[in-house]
Amino acid sequence: MSRVYGSLNQASLSSDLAHASTVVAPPSEGEIARLRQQIDASLADYLEAQRAAYLRLPVFATLYVDLADFVRRPGKRLRPLLFLLGHRVFQRGLGERAAVPSEAALAKVAVSLELLHTFILVHDDIIDRSETRRGTPTLHRALEGRFASFTHRHRAGRNLAIVMGDVLFALAQKCLLETVLPEGMGARLGTLLLGCMVETGFGEAADIIHSTRDVSKVELSEIEHMYCLKTTCYTIEGPLAMAAVLAGGGDEMLEAIGRIAKPAGLAFQIQNDLHEFARFEVSDAEVPADILEGKKTLLARLAFERLNEIDRGLLQMCFSAGTPTEGTVSKARELVTKSGAVGELTRKMDKLFAQSYAETRWPGFPASVQEELGALLQLIRGAAARV
Amino acid sequence: MSRVYGSLNQASLSSDLAHASTVVAPPSEGEIARLRQQIDASLADYLEAQRAAYLRLPVFATLYVDLADFVRRPGKRLRPLLFLLGHRVFQRGLGERAAVPSEAALAKVAVSLELLHTFILVHDDIIDRSETRRGTPTLHRALEGRFASFTHRHRAGRNLAIVMGDVLFALAQKCLLETVLPEGMGARLGTLLLGCMVETGFGEAADIIHSTRDVSKVELSEIEHMYCLKTTCYTIEGPLAMAAVLAGGGDEMLEAIGRIAKPAGLAFQIQNDLHEFARFEVSDAEVPADILEGKKTLLARLAFERLNEIDRGLLQMCFSAGTPTEGTVSKARELVTKSGAVGELTRKMDKLFAQSYAETRWPGFPASVQEELGALLQLIRGAAARV
Repeated sequence: MSRVYGSLNQASLSSDLAHASTVVAPPSEGEIARLRQQIDASLADYLEAQRAAYLRLPVFATLYVDLADFVRRPGKRLRPLLFLLGHRVFQRGLGERAAVPSEAALAKVAVSLELLHTFILVHDDIIDRSETRRGTPTLHRALEGRFASFTHRHRAGRNLAIVMGDVLFALAQKCLLETVLPEGMGARLGTLLLGCMVETGFGEAADIIHSTRDVSKVELSEIEHMYCLKTTCYTIEGPLAMAAVLAGGGDEMLEAIGRIAKPAGLAFQIQNDLHEFARFEVSDAEVPADILEGKKTLLARLAFERLNEIDRGLLQMCFSAGTPTEGTVSKARELVTKSGAVGELTRKMDKLFAQSYAETRWPGFPASVQEELGALLQLIRGAAARV
Repeated sequence: MSRVYGSLNQASLSSDLAHASTVVAPPSEGEIARLRQQIDASLADYLEAQRAAYLRLPVFATLYVDLADFVRRPGKRLRPLLFLLGHRVFQRGLGERAAVPSEAALAKVAVSLELLHTFILVHDDIIDRSETRRGTPTLHRALEGRFASFTHRHRAGRNLAIVMGDVLFALAQKCLLETVLPEGMGARLGTLLLGCMVETGFGEAADIIHSTRDVSKVELSEIEHMYCLKTTCYTIEGPLAMAAVLAGGGDEMLEAIGRIAKPAGLAFQIQNDLHEFARFEVSDAEVPADILEGKKTLLARLAFERLNEIDRGLLQMCFSAGTPTEGTVSKARELVTKSGAVGELTRKMDKLFAQSYAETRWPGFPASVQEELGALLQLIRGAAARV
């Protein structure tokens, strides 16, 4: 069996984890790159097989190209990576508890996770009216481009992206169901994943509902809970839980994984918010969708919390101004910077990762699993920083 | 075992089927009503169980009420009915080929079909910008109503409905996966259903793409194919195929079901179009979404086909006028009426139902199955007429 991680590389570990007594290095860059390639190849294969099965009509040819291109855009592939690496960790650590699925089967589960993620991105981008995703147009904008001469092309692009998102959701689950897994595992993984998808949906709903409320009316705890539902469940908990179940892990182990995932997912989302804010400081060319849509991020809420009465009023005005102008956007940025919320959230994020790391020491995990899960957290941390 | 159908009732059969040598009456009104009640009760139970599992936050309370209310609105429940009645037919006809699932399991499969249907309605209504569904506001309009004082309530309602549709899709499949079915059946039914959902998605995509094209550029055959993908697969073929598979039917039987479903589904959709048009003649209060959105229905396309040059030009103008006015709408109606397309489509629909009926005589079906499937077609026909 190949080794999961590269050689020990103490320098790459962040300072707050360096005190850990036994340290396993996170997966090497080379290993990650190799796995990403494998995931991309499986994804391309699956999309190709589906094309033959479904696309008998010329009207769909360009549509399918747009869809497949969108799915295949280079991405972090965080969810499939966490699943594949997590499965190796649990499989080695738990020994012979469960039948080992084939490499091909594991690759298909990974593909289904990435398809699900893409489905979520497609609908999210419609909701947030985002223009770009991974550096190129969002799916609804790309599809809109196909109707250049049609008056209502904007609506046609959005509508097509809604149904293409639905198709991706269906394909993701079909891919999982068709995977040849040991007895009863298909249904268990499917149920786990669908449970996550329901949570994600309610998390997105909370996000939308919060965006209709004044920033002073949304509690920090509500935003944290929303992040947990919207991101943590399907990004971190789901992939690791599926990996553990496949390797024979029981309900107690799933609970331990939940305790690791919760702070890690919140930290991951905070890191994303901070990254978005930093990017936004660099260039004004693109107003972040969060601000455009009045999204209640932890950063915005915390800034509000830390400002004085007058500045609070100004920040509220920026959020409730409807369509943001250059003036309101730059004022909001200035107020957030002034509040010191970035520093506080950075410290909070470090603390959350450390908390997550501590949860990997659950005594029910064999020692190797404890150590290697700790190293996997570095992958999550690195992924958040590298959007 | 209870009898599937009520007593023979020759009068209720339409004339084009009356020549059949052996005639079995369709399920009685009482039987249908009883099954519908059973489906509604299972649906309510499932929604209640999910509420407890997912809704730990007050912010979701009203959202869930809106969602559950929408799902529970009285409807035809055609898909679960076809599945439940179809399963009885196949189970009795095929005898001991497969293990019999429990009543509770069958009810859960039926619930998942209705949840899927509701998910499709929710996204369809957003796409078509429909105001009402089953006599009350569509989900996006109902949700919008919760944000009366919010400036962008229209967008908030639509966005919430997109994610609530996604949640329904996830719940539908979770419901199916959690159902205790004989060995391997869960994955088979799930795969069948997800295949249908992909077809539905591409059918909706075709509908949107056609709506961006001039009526003269969309072939009748393209519209028929779009109807087949969009409606037939998940409405008729899917429920019957799932019923047959559960009762031990093999691939050849599924192909025969496909041959029955194809003309029946097209006829069902034509009947819906005709019904929509008739309703629209009665009252001008509500412009049908199809016309509003430039949808290329068979009725519109056939009318175009049958009109002279001048009238064709007028009809094209009505469709391409952008936001329809009272004038363009009443002109379009006048032209469609004048074309005689309604009569031609009515005859086509009768022919399609007869064709579907003929396919029930596939020799691979036991005689009882042939007869009872023929009777089930009456249910489909009745459902289309009673929207």
